[in-house]
Amino acid sequence: MSVSKNLQNFTQWGRKIVAVGRNYRDHCAELGNPIPKSPLLFMKPPSSYLIEEAGPILIPRGCNDIHHEVELGVVIGSKCQDVSEKEVLNHVAGYALTLDMTARDFQNEAKAKGNPWAMAKCFDTALPVSRFIALNEIPDPGNVELWCKVNGEERQRGTTSDMIFSISHLISYISKYFTLDEGDLVLTGTPAGVGPVKEGDVLSCGITDLIEMNFNVKRKL
Amino acid sequence: MSVSKNLQNFTQWGRKIVAVGRNYRDHCAELGNPIPKSPLLFMKPPSSYLIEEAGPILIPRGCNDIHHEVELGVVIGSKCQDVSEKEVLNHVAGYALTLDMTARDFQNEAKAKGNPWAMAKCFDTALPVSRFIALNEIPDPGNVELWCKVNGEERQRGTTSDMIFSISHLISYISKYFTLDEGDLVLTGTPAGVGPVKEGDVLSCGITDLIEMNFNVKRKL
Ligand SMILES: [Mg+2]
Ligand SMILES: [Mg+2]
Ligand SMILES: [Mg+2]
Repeated sequence: MSVSKNLQNFTQWGRKIVAVGRNYRDHCAELGNPIPKSPLLFMKPPSSYLIEEAGPILIPRGCNDIHHEVELGVVIGSKCQDVSEKEVLNHVAGYALTLDMTARDFQNEAKAKGNPWAMAKCFDTALPVSRFIALNEIPDPGNVELWCKVNGEERQRGTTSDMIFSISHLISYISKYFTLDEGDLVLTGTPAGVGPVKEGDVLSCGITDLIEMNFNVKRKL
Repeated sequence: MSVSKNLQNFTQWGRKIVAVGRNYRDHCAELGNPIPKSPLLFMKPPSSYLIEEAGPILIPRGCNDIHHEVELGVVIGSKCQDVSEKEVLNHVAGYALTLDMTARDFQNEAKAKGNPWAMAKCFDTALPVSRFIALNEIPDPGNVELWCKVNGEERQRGTTSDMIFSISHLISYISKYFTLDEGDLVLTGTPAGVGPVKEGDVLSCGITDLIEMNFNVKRKL
C-alpha cells in the first residue's frame, strides 16, 4: 500500500472534511441556537489540519475571539453515496479526536450578514487532530467521553451519547448530498462549554482513558 | 511525475476549492447584495467536481431553484502562503472554465437563518469543470470573455475585466488565511445573468474563442 492510501496518514491525503454544527442540545442552548431539524453541515479544508507535532494553533489575523470545540471525528474507509444508516458502519475506518477551532467573532458577523462560514472555520490550523484511532479502540462510538481544558482548567466534558443526530444518521444524511470518500473526515459536533483561548494558552483535549493532545496557542503574525 | 501530480488531472487529486461570491458589480446588483469590502470566500469540496464526460449535473434532493454561475477558475501550481499580489502569478499553473452551480433556494434559506452555505454550494456535481487550460492559452486572465447558455439561449456574457477584486488580489488575500496548495482551484466569481436550469435542460458555457462545454441537467433520484 502506498503512503498516499495509508489511513494512518489520512490527514496527508484525505480530500474532504464535513462538519456538523449544533449536534448537542446543551451546546445549542449555550449559543442561543435552535435545535436543528436536520444536520447543519459545513466544510473545513484539508489545509486546516494541524497535527500535534506541527506547531501551535494560530489565531487568524483580525480574530479576537477564537473558541475551542472538542469533537469526535469519524474517518471514512470507503466511498459513501446514499448509504443507509444500517450500512454506515461498514464504511467507517476509524476515528480521530479533533478541535473544531472557530473564529467566533468572524462567525457571528457571518451569521448576522447571511455570509458563508469559511473565514470562521477554514483558516490554517483550524483543525487540530489526533493520530488515527482504530475501530477496536472505540468499541462504542455512541458512548465516548470527550473533554477539553485550557491551561489545565476543565472547560468541556461531554459524552457522544448526548448527540442529537447519531453518527450513523449523520453519515447517511451527508451521503445523500456529498459523496464521502476514503480518507474523508466527518466531525460530529461539540458538547457545551465552548469558549475562548488566547495567545500563550495551552489547549488540551482528550477521550477519557484513550488519548490526550496538547496545543499551544499563538497569534498569526 | 506520477499521475497523482499531473496538473492536467488536478480534479482527481487537488484537495481544495476556494470560491468567491459577489466579485462582479452587475451580479451583486441582480441579487440585491452589497458590494463587498473584502472578498467573500466559501469552499466547495473536490467531490463536487464534474467533468464533461462523467454525466449530467444532478439537481440535489429538495432543491427547486438551481442556478448556473459561469466562472473562470485558477489552478494553483505551488504552495501559496502569505503571497503578495506581485508574487501570485508565479504560483498559477493554469486555468479552468467552471460552473459554480448553486441551489439558490437552499442558499436563500441559509442566508436568512445565518447558516453555512454548504448545502447550496457543495453537493455532488455542483462544480462542472473543463479540461486544464495552460497559461499560454490565456495570455491575459484579466480580459477573458465568459458566456453561458441554457438550451442555446444566452444567459450570461461578461468579461473578467469587470471583476471587483483581481485574480492577484483574490489569491493574495486567500493566502493570508488559507494556504493554497498545488492542484487547488480558485473560483473568481460570476458576471450577471445567473438564473435557473431545470431537468432536461442543456447548460453550455465557454470562453470565447477558446473552449466550450455542455452538460445535461437531471434531477437526482
Ligand atoms: Mg463544531
Ligand atoms: Mg461554508
Ligand atoms: Mg459563484
